[in-house]
Amino acid sequence: MPLDIYDKIMMLAKRRGFIYPAFEIYGGIAGFYDYGPLGSRLKQNIENLWRSFYLLKDNCVEISTPTITLHEVLKASGHVDEFTDLTVDCKKCKASYKVEGIIEEGIIVEDAVKNDRIKCPTCGAILKDPYPVNLMFSTTIGMGEGRAAFLRPETAQGIFTNFHLLYRYAREKLPFGVIQVGRGYRNEVSPRQGTIRMREFSMAEAEIFFDPKDKTHHNFDSVKDKELYLFDNEKEMKISMGQSVETKVINNQALAYYMYLTQEFLMSAGVDPKKFRFRKHASDELAHYAQECWDAELFSERFGWVECVGIADRSAYDLSAHIESSGTDMYAMRKYSEPKIVEVKKIVPKMGALGPLFKGKADKIKTVLENMELKESKKISVDIDGEILEIPDDCYDIVETKEKVAGEKFVPHIIEPSYGIDRILYCVLEHNYREIKKKGEEYRLLKLNALVAPIKVGVLPLISDERLVKVAKEIDKNLRNAGIATYYDEGGTIGRRYARMDEAGTPFCITIDHDTLEDNTVTIRDRDTTEQERKKIEDAVQYIKDKTSQ
Amino acid sequence: MPLDIYDKIMMLAKRRGFIYPAFEIYGGIAGFYDYGPLGSRLKQNIENLWRSFYLLKDNCVEISTPTITLHEVLKASGHVDEFTDLTVDCKKCKASYKVEGIIEEGIIVEDAVKNDRIKCPTCGAILKDPYPVNLMFSTTIGMGEGRAAFLRPETAQGIFTNFHLLYRYAREKLPFGVIQVGRGYRNEVSPRQGTIRMREFSMAEAEIFFDPKDKTHHNFDSVKDKELYLFDNEKEMKISMGQSVETKVINNQALAYYMYLTQEFLMSAGVDPKKFRFRKHASDELAHYAQECWDAELFSERFGWVECVGIADRSAYDLSAHIESSGTDMYAMRKYSEPKIVEVKKIVPKMGALGPLFKGKADKIKTVLENMELKESKKISVDIDGEILEIPDDCYDIVETKEKVAGEKFVPHIIEPSYGIDRILYCVLEHNYREIKKKGEEYRLLKLNALVAPIKVGVLPLISDERLVKVAKEIDKNLRNAGIATYYDEGGTIGRRYARMDEAGTPFCITIDHDTLEDNTVTIRDRDTTEQERKKIEDAVQYIKDKTSQ
Repeated sequence: MPLDIYDKIMMLAKRRGFIYPAFEIYGGIAGFYDYGPLGSRLKQNIENLWRSFYLLKDNCVEISTPTITLHEVLKASGHVDEFTDLTVDCKKCKASYKVEGIIEEGIIVEDAVKNDRIKCPTCGAILKDPYPVNLMFSTTIGMGEGRAAFLRPETAQGIFTNFHLLYRYAREKLPFGVIQVGRGYRNEVSPRQGTIRMREFSMAEAEIFFDPKDKTHHNFDSVKDKELYLFDNEKEMKISMGQSVETKVINNQALAYYMYLTQEFLMSAGVDPKKFRFRKHASDELAHYAQECWDAELFSERFGWVECVGIADRSAYDLSAHIESSGTDMYAMRKYSEPKIVEVKKIVPKMGALGPLFKGKADKIKTVLENMELKESKKISVDIDGEILEIPDDCYDIVETKEKVAGEKFVPHIIEPSYGIDRILYCVLEHNYREIKKKGEEYRLLKLNALVAPIKVGVLPLISDERLVKVAKEIDKNLRNAGIATYYDEGGTIGRRYARMDEAGTPFCITIDHDTLEDNTVTIRDRDTTEQERKKIEDAVQYIKDKTSQ
Repeated sequence: MPLDIYDKIMMLAKRRGFIYPAFEIYGGIAGFYDYGPLGSRLKQNIENLWRSFYLLKDNCVEISTPTITLHEVLKASGHVDEFTDLTVDCKKCKASYKVEGIIEEGIIVEDAVKNDRIKCPTCGAILKDPYPVNLMFSTTIGMGEGRAAFLRPETAQGIFTNFHLLYRYAREKLPFGVIQVGRGYRNEVSPRQGTIRMREFSMAEAEIFFDPKDKTHHNFDSVKDKELYLFDNEKEMKISMGQSVETKVINNQALAYYMYLTQEFLMSAGVDPKKFRFRKHASDELAHYAQECWDAELFSERFGWVECVGIADRSAYDLSAHIESSGTDMYAMRKYSEPKIVEVKKIVPKMGALGPLFKGKADKIKTVLENMELKESKKISVDIDGEILEIPDDCYDIVETKEKVAGEKFVPHIIEPSYGIDRILYCVLEHNYREIKKKGEEYRLLKLNALVAPIKVGVLPLISDERLVKVAKEIDKNLRNAGIATYYDEGGTIGRRYARMDEAGTPFCITIDHDTLEDNTVTIRDRDTTEQERKKIEDAVQYIKDKTSQ
């Protein structure tokens, strides 16, 4: 079987130091990869490019929370119950499979289960009784029984559980956005898609909090004529931002705006526009928390259309869940233009009845009752130092009064663009991988965009003459001091050194030769045109800076 | 009890968005913290400042590996057996304690155990039978029994297990350095030191691979007169780098050089030089892998001297362990100036004896024997498809021959500077926290160094006049486009806005007033001097850039 593009990229990735299979010296395990010197820098460049869109263009703030997450958080968020894969065992082969991974394309899971269409991919037996398996890695904090915890399946929950503090940081004004970049975890049943389906991965997520009555975006007008490439599971279409929202193809401005930002980011990262589209989730594939979701999909020759970004309207789902589970006030306030007089029902405790019944606790009960929000339910109970006490209804009156209120409380809605950095990184490699023949031999290039390329410029003395080396090292140092990632190389023929830089995706090379000593000029070689241009040293350094800075 | 400095800093940290206790809405749990908008940026700035020392000044490369680590890796590294805390239970209080944390200061653990000196800090009972508890968080990869794994206790192992690939990336030349920045985990028994003892923390580690015969550093000469502040557990001393190595106070140039780099980094990050020292590990406190270790300690008013960096000579410990456990060739080659003729003992199989005895397997055995390294032990056995076969000594001859060899193989030594980012961050906050009185009221400042301050400049229109706001927003945008973190603020009196910036550690404010509209000048306020200087807008922007860029 000839090598396909994935095999070729992974070979280059290992040889050049982009990606290594993790724990390989101990046999390795599916779903874990290491980023080598070039891969780690490529990943950081992609992440920082992403940050520039959200921190700079969209004015979000960034936070950083633990990967280990208490059970309580993920119980409330629904992940303990819903973050599962339907799994099936083959009794003959002793293997377990994710049902979705082994049924025929086009068949939906429910039908496969109902109609005995799940076959063992190894022995062909009909497999029955699939069961859900939770996909979170679990661990325990502390000794013995300790506290149950999971490795986070998304960075988002770390943002939601701080909403009330972040709302205060934002000076209690909506909308505002908070991002987090970091590791996420998913204990896949049997991952078989290389770097596309990792068990530990890097995510970049933005959670933008909106007033549900106003999902407009303040920058929308300036980009309303820009076009998006959409696929609604039936047909592809090119549609302007403005039209997409007017015709309700996309539900609101905010969703459309973050789709646009996603498209801009992916193009800057070097994605091939012909291998890019937004696909709308059908209602039966929406995550448990999502109201509407668009995936940015990138096309891979090995894997087909790959979901790399999900842009979801999570509505009030998450904050409501945490308000209910934790009892924390995570509401936002919609201020009235002027205070309103509203009718409110209040509980007025009767000490004459409370005192004899509750004795020493009566005072505490009185305070709690006075500050209590009156709910529909008829029975009133209070929590006094951990003890739940039911309060008979002759211990209080319910009085209707008029109050001046400054605004109304509500649970903000969340628009979430969530990016799988590793998948984007792989697709960027695939979209920019080129094979050509040079003097009859295979020659490989990575045409990485200068903004994300791990090395921006190779600094090469033409030969290892002491005088050339001295100048070359000085230029190298100047570039590095300006924060530009260089690779200084004096080993081997100049052709071989260019080839090494081409495989590493380096957009430019500066070559120092004997003319340099005469007239202070160097050659700049452009990877993509292979053209060489002669420039003064200082102009060359400035040229590289301008071309490669984010 | 009055609030101490730690309490005050944590209050400011929560109010201003530096640090939040994690999972607080679910009651929280010791050892986990969230970094808010300012804290996350401060942490990134510290990490990037650190990177600039190792990537730029020391020419290391960076990699990024999973936090989940296979059992095999950490078994080989010694962590499964040695990464433990001696722990003791109180049967009365039902609590468990780390022995080290509850014995009197100055007493060593062994003596405490022997002489019944471990007392329950709650009830005073004498506690017996302490036992070691492993401090790694464990988890399982895959379903059912799956594969045993841990959350990494250090990022270093991800570097060691890739040594052979990284050695190739370094074109097989020593020394070379590899860094990793990321999360580390330590399942503390009962952490009670706030952000100083976290269960999930951020580390920055550098692993520099040396030829054990040459632990010099190529930059050493240029810094040999610089002084280090040392404490050898008896006295403090100020000693030049050169002298420290000559007198063997520090074992070798490499160790001393990375101590120097550490000192420079910490000072740039804003550590108070009077609250800094290097302390040498006594031989009984060395980690299981360390030959010599110096801690950079920072002084905290609450916690005393805190270990923030460990600079260890790990010798050949780790690579030897992985070579032995995995069988991978992780040697480096010391090339001879010219090839040498050496005598080698070779195994020459006798097919006449092997054939009748092993039949179909004889050919495979022959190949294995020919490629085998001859060890001291007399019995020779081979592994053929998983079966271990002992080879009688009449099946082979041992022949001495002469061979031309290009160099000799050896296991590189490792010098490891390992930084606890969260501890450094806390100490930077503590060393730069100031309380003064202003108009009779408490006034708090963080005198953070401009290089690490999360916000570099506040942009403040003097009043919220439309024309001032317009200019201010333009200046703000220019600064942000230049990659400078700004905070635009038009709310409240100018004094209150300065105060907000002072508490956030912002070194500069630009104020836009009515003169700005006349003559294009603005005021730059310096946090530390509170002096205000009038500058042309473009000069002001350039001034901020110069003062705040790393």
